[in-house]
Amino acid sequence: MIRSLSPDERFMLEAFRLAKKGEGSVSPNPMVGALIVNEGQIVGRGHHRRAGEPHAELLALQQAGPKARGASLYVNLEPCCHQGRTPPCVDAIIQAGISRVVAGAQDANPLVNGAGFKLLRAAGVAVMKGCLESRARDLNEIFFTYITKNRPFIIAKVAMSLDGKMATATGESKWITTQMSRHFSYKLRRNVDAIMVGVNTVLADDPELLRRPSRTSPPRPFTRIIVDTGLRTPPWSRIFRTARTHPVLLLCGSNASQRRRQTLEKTGATVLPCAVKDSRVNFPEALRELADRQITSVILEGGAEMLGTAFDHRLVDKVIFFVAPKIIGGTKAISPVAGKGARMMSDAIPVTDVKWMRAGSDMVVSGRPAYRDR
Amino acid sequence: MIRSLSPDERFMLEAFRLAKKGEGSVSPNPMVGALIVNEGQIVGRGHHRRAGEPHAELLALQQAGPKARGASLYVNLEPCCHQGRTPPCVDAIIQAGISRVVAGAQDANPLVNGAGFKLLRAAGVAVMKGCLESRARDLNEIFFTYITKNRPFIIAKVAMSLDGKMATATGESKWITTQMSRHFSYKLRRNVDAIMVGVNTVLADDPELLRRPSRTSPPRPFTRIIVDTGLRTPPWSRIFRTARTHPVLLLCGSNASQRRRQTLEKTGATVLPCAVKDSRVNFPEALRELADRQITSVILEGGAEMLGTAFDHRLVDKVIFFVAPKIIGGTKAISPVAGKGARMMSDAIPVTDVKWMRAGSDMVVSGRPAYRDR
Repeated sequence: MIRSLSPDERFMLEAFRLAKKGEGSVSPNPMVGALIVNEGQIVGRGHHRRAGEPHAELLALQQAGPKARGASLYVNLEPCCHQGRTPPCVDAIIQAGISRVVAGAQDANPLVNGAGFKLLRAAGVAVMKGCLESRARDLNEIFFTYITKNRPFIIAKVAMSLDGKMATATGESKWITTQMSRHFSYKLRRNVDAIMVGVNTVLADDPELLRRPSRTSPPRPFTRIIVDTGLRTPPWSRIFRTARTHPVLLLCGSNASQRRRQTLEKTGATVLPCAVKDSRVNFPEALRELADRQITSVILEGGAEMLGTAFDHRLVDKVIFFVAPKIIGGTKAISPVAGKGARMMSDAIPVTDVKWMRAGSDMVVSGRPAYRDR
Repeated sequence: MIRSLSPDERFMLEAFRLAKKGEGSVSPNPMVGALIVNEGQIVGRGHHRRAGEPHAELLALQQAGPKARGASLYVNLEPCCHQGRTPPCVDAIIQAGISRVVAGAQDANPLVNGAGFKLLRAAGVAVMKGCLESRARDLNEIFFTYITKNRPFIIAKVAMSLDGKMATATGESKWITTQMSRHFSYKLRRNVDAIMVGVNTVLADDPELLRRPSRTSPPRPFTRIIVDTGLRTPPWSRIFRTARTHPVLLLCGSNASQRRRQTLEKTGATVLPCAVKDSRVNFPEALRELADRQITSVILEGGAEMLGTAFDHRLVDKVIFFVAPKIIGGTKAISPVAGKGARMMSDAIPVTDVKWMRAGSDMVVSGRPAYRDR
């Protein structure tokens, strides 16, 4: 359905655009963009740059100055009403004399969650919420998942051949996809807090899992996580070479060897013992541990066992499959998602919002697993 | 690169269109369309309908009558010069007084293979060959493969989930793809001579493998082939219920039990013992047996072992993957191509001429394996 946008919606799109400037650097905060419109003219713009720095609303109000009086404020997320590292935006909005607030999504943070709107209304400010709401929610899908589920937003990333193999029968996986796909997947890393692999992937590929340095956005911690119940990661793995400058976190079972733990910690890595279930790190609990460390988003890059565990627990929020047009074949070649899997066809997890793109000769398929119980 | 077509090429496209009318019914012959153009006017059209019936050129000449004199003949394939079930076209063309022949591809049939052109030229007919040649060859890819390689053209068809599984861990495979994909794959069956599955697929799914009756094209034999080295197919399998009206061919090892063979033959099926290699039916030799029976094209519909064998032998000419947007997962779920597979990534088989389409929510990826030694 195509319909033309209302003036409010057009201003909201501009707020989204501003918000997105903070992509990859505001974590654990949401991306927020705000603009102030006085008699149809934009008189102030702002976006949240990074946690600890001023909120979008304040920056827009500052830019508008006295022109904020009687003006409308457009913001993709409900303004905050709590004292965090910065003072509540609601107070500033009221003080500046804003007469109308148009908001995208309500802030799911339990400290806000509608209270911001309530305070604004109580002060006589007209509030219109839910403008382009679903897009406003999608924009901050990472933040909403983190704040409501107390776990990171999980993106499962797979590189496979057309016949669904992540490696050859002998275990070789470099490279299935083209350079353009790999470039694309480096870009993905830029927008998340962490990357996670299973210990088998480290043993097989010895990856570095670094983020490419970006010229535009400021460096932000990017945690490299290895799920390694028995601490089998060798201390000479490439990932540890940069462990003192770029965080490495090993999630091990609570019963892992204390000696191995000490050896690995000497590399500069952090070892975090987690509860064990079925002789493996309990995946949902491990994710809660990560949320406690303000890791709001994680790319799972395999291997098959870890991806299987994540899907078995219905804990993948987004999938990105890079499919190379080639046939690898082989009974022993590894298929991307192991674990228990679906018993019956009706237990398979549908993927919705499917998008296909090309990356060179590869194709990229992304979408959202749709769990029935959600 | 876009360039406008010459008048010759435009007439050739019309010949292609006519030729395609015979798709799925001319086997083991090629598809041929012909038109006769006199002073820019099309005065005769014809296409080959089925083996044993008149060739396209003759039909077009008949339609043109005396207007064929001094006219040009457009035909996608070199006119035949040998006496088959019908008399040689070259004689008729010369007799009708055609002054110029524009042809697409040279006929690779060793009985023709340029001799048709030679005879025409010797009779004073101007010959222009190679008009839209590669498209003319693609149009008859089945025929060219059959006639030059003495084996059927092989299409590997796979239905799988996004994570590359053909069935769940418990073996359920109905249905991975949507009805639209299945409809599409029924359409594929219409244009080939045979469908082939491994015995494990029969044991697991007990399929009928019938072709849907078509209202437009006349019924043509469609052979259902089971590769079953040890003749393990149970005689009560669904496929045999229709074996007396719709051919079923079992390819077994030369050492398979004589008693089982007799039991299976009682269903109406034909059992064809083949040479054995590595305790399996020797796949390349089995294909030659099929060519001897004028089977020019086969769809391989699995299972994974048979597809693996076909790729290991570099004997797949075309792939069609139906990919359903769902995650099945599971260590025990079956991946589409087994066999030995590629050892190193550089041994993987690139797929070229890749085309993606949608079929409902599924995607359909087709292409041609590009073997290095070809």
